[in-house]
Amino acid sequence: MQPRKIRKLCNAAREASRRLATLTPDQKNLALAEMAEALMRRKGEIIRENRDDIKEGKAAHLSAALLDRLRLDEDRIRDMADGLRHLASLPDPVGEIVDGWHTSNGLEISRIRVPFGVIAVIFEARPNVAVDAAGLCLKAGNSAILRGGSASLRSVRILTEIISGALIDAGIPRDAVSMVESRERGDLKQLLAMSDYIDLVIPRGGEGLKDYLKKNSKIPVIYAAGGNCHTFVDASAEVEKAIRVVVNAKVQRPGVCNALETLLVHRRAAADFIPLAAAELIKRNVLLYMDEDSRALAETSVRDGSEWIEEATDEHYATEFLDLKLAVKIVDSVDEAIEHITRYGTGHSEAILTNDLENSRRFAAGVDAACVYVNASTRFTDGGEFGMGAEIGISTQKLHARGPLGLRELTSVKYVITGDGHVRG
Amino acid sequence: MQPRKIRKLCNAAREASRRLATLTPDQKNLALAEMAEALMRRKGEIIRENRDDIKEGKAAHLSAALLDRLRLDEDRIRDMADGLRHLASLPDPVGEIVDGWHTSNGLEISRIRVPFGVIAVIFEARPNVAVDAAGLCLKAGNSAILRGGSASLRSVRILTEIISGALIDAGIPRDAVSMVESRERGDLKQLLAMSDYIDLVIPRGGEGLKDYLKKNSKIPVIYAAGGNCHTFVDASAEVEKAIRVVVNAKVQRPGVCNALETLLVHRRAAADFIPLAAAELIKRNVLLYMDEDSRALAETSVRDGSEWIEEATDEHYATEFLDLKLAVKIVDSVDEAIEHITRYGTGHSEAILTNDLENSRRFAAGVDAACVYVNASTRFTDGGEFGMGAEIGISTQKLHARGPLGLRELTSVKYVITGDGHVRG
Repeated sequence: MQPRKIRKLCNAAREASRRLATLTPDQKNLALAEMAEALMRRKGEIIRENRDDIKEGKAAHLSAALLDRLRLDEDRIRDMADGLRHLASLPDPVGEIVDGWHTSNGLEISRIRVPFGVIAVIFEARPNVAVDAAGLCLKAGNSAILRGGSASLRSVRILTEIISGALIDAGIPRDAVSMVESRERGDLKQLLAMSDYIDLVIPRGGEGLKDYLKKNSKIPVIYAAGGNCHTFVDASAEVEKAIRVVVNAKVQRPGVCNALETLLVHRRAAADFIPLAAAELIKRNVLLYMDEDSRALAETSVRDGSEWIEEATDEHYATEFLDLKLAVKIVDSVDEAIEHITRYGTGHSEAILTNDLENSRRFAAGVDAACVYVNASTRFTDGGEFGMGAEIGISTQKLHARGPLGLRELTSVKYVITGDGHVRG
Repeated sequence: MQPRKIRKLCNAAREASRRLATLTPDQKNLALAEMAEALMRRKGEIIRENRDDIKEGKAAHLSAALLDRLRLDEDRIRDMADGLRHLASLPDPVGEIVDGWHTSNGLEISRIRVPFGVIAVIFEARPNVAVDAAGLCLKAGNSAILRGGSASLRSVRILTEIISGALIDAGIPRDAVSMVESRERGDLKQLLAMSDYIDLVIPRGGEGLKDYLKKNSKIPVIYAAGGNCHTFVDASAEVEKAIRVVVNAKVQRPGVCNALETLLVHRRAAADFIPLAAAELIKRNVLLYMDEDSRALAETSVRDGSEWIEEATDEHYATEFLDLKLAVKIVDSVDEAIEHITRYGTGHSEAILTNDLENSRRFAAGVDAACVYVNASTRFTDGGEFGMGAEIGISTQKLHARGPLGLRELTSVKYVITGDGHVRG
């Protein structure tokens, strides 16, 4: 796209955002319902366009995993529509009076939740992110500018077109959702310079995209680091329960950012816990990278499992495997566990399994992460599981929002101050 | 400073921040009291070092205004000490349970206020910012890295030394407050690349500094735009009250960001309001840039004031005068006032003076700014006036914090989730 065209698109999004900010919850929920209906009505077109993306992706030798992420079928389209309907059922964040007070001279101060204005969502292969992001932004009163990966260009284009049409049907400016239709990195750079029009950038993608944004964005970004997540099995942990949680955190869905990557075990729990845990994990095809002491314990129980156990290196402790692999280490205290996590963690989700109240408090206070768990699986870090209804990602930065980014996190605030001719003395 | 030295300093600040995060309010308040006492005890040294900065500033032909900002005398040192003691009296933000809930499966979720970690404060001439910033950061549990302007190098050095000494006396790591001792822009750039150690950058300075940060910071920044603030006198405004508020907003301290810069007047209020308001403003040496209609009205009352009235241009409406100058315009409706503010405002502080409930609601909802006033002077935008006790600046960005940056705004949050062996299904 030409720079002028990108600026025009951004300006239209900003104009639309003024209108969005004044909509009632009912008006927005109606639009979400219209969007859902339009997706289902036009699913044939979506699948046709998507098929062309897939065809081109195959010709370009995209991996099977990427092609799967790219694919839209009837089930996935229904999931998107259901997601929008669910969004419509959630409480509206805009207009919430976050807090308020009277000052000593009688001024009334209210802090009120308001939309950001315009949010740009930069994503990679999955075209369904376009619909999720557009819905979340709309519900929070923001215009969305979508910029998908080049492989999904046709799919995102038809989805954006369908959404825009539904917006018009609901009496909302179509520019509330728009798409930067381009495969050029230069266009992305152009977009990231539009700080006069765009209030926030949210990336949904890997480290390469993040590095690119860090270097090029003139607009504030909410980053999500990967999740090199730990679980510490304390001396007082109940063995069976601990095994259940550890297996869940590692195995239930290993490819996601809240999955367990390193298991830390208190030396006093090791003899009871490690042989059983290793057997359970290996049974589920988990490859273990173990320090010397834990390895010796594991090998007492796992007779035919020697090919499932390797020696752990520093690099293993630093790696987010996103796979059926787990690093294991024995530590001598909760403090040593905290130190290990401070050194290797990415501030995502960290857990302690314990029945010791003091240690649970020490761990919760001492670990610096978005989500710290006591006696639960790290897999719960998720807007849906937290009861936020939906999320656009998990933030691991400390500015603005940490943890799941739900509707509330897609808003800013405004002070409204009411007086009676008050002047400052 | 050498790059290696800056990295070492940042790393030490990060290490100290771990300790800071675990301090009790009492420990931090004791340190603030120690800092205040040490400043008073060593005021002679401070004044001596400051005198050398002033001498050098004079030799470098700094303006009188800059030299005044640079100067520290006994009164200003006492003010700094009093500020620290006041900080000690404020509620501690760290550990506040912001909110919390139980999920449907019985997980207990708490969102808890925690320190950021390390905050770099970049400021220009005023050396007292070093003490204010160090105090605020400490109370919020953060390490502070101070980087003052080159003109105040000696003053900031002695202040930092005194603060560090007081920290040691209070049993707190001295690296909780440190200073990048340098006059080189290259060192600032180096500092702004330390995203592994620094969580947040707060600038206290002009547009030049902000532009530099926008271009060079790899660390999140909280920006404060200037304040091109408006006050709209609606048709129903009570004339006398409106004049009092307008005069206060313009005249009480014209050089600050929350001072009034453009006055908008409803056409139906103009005949009653403008002649009297113009006379009152001119009496206080305010130069008026007026549109044709308001000028005609003003000139009916201001006989000898013709040299105080000039024709307004678009540029006047776009200017933050920070001076005894005021642009004036007549508008036909609250919507036209909102449009004007949308076009020229900087999102800082905007006011409506009215007795019309519908218009007050329309204005409060329609104006996109950090602070929107109904029947009060824009001069109230200030952490102290808001009852926050203290502030490090006024944010006009929408990410993280908007409006006065008090102690709460210098913190992040963390989720602590407690279960009983919960696993995700």
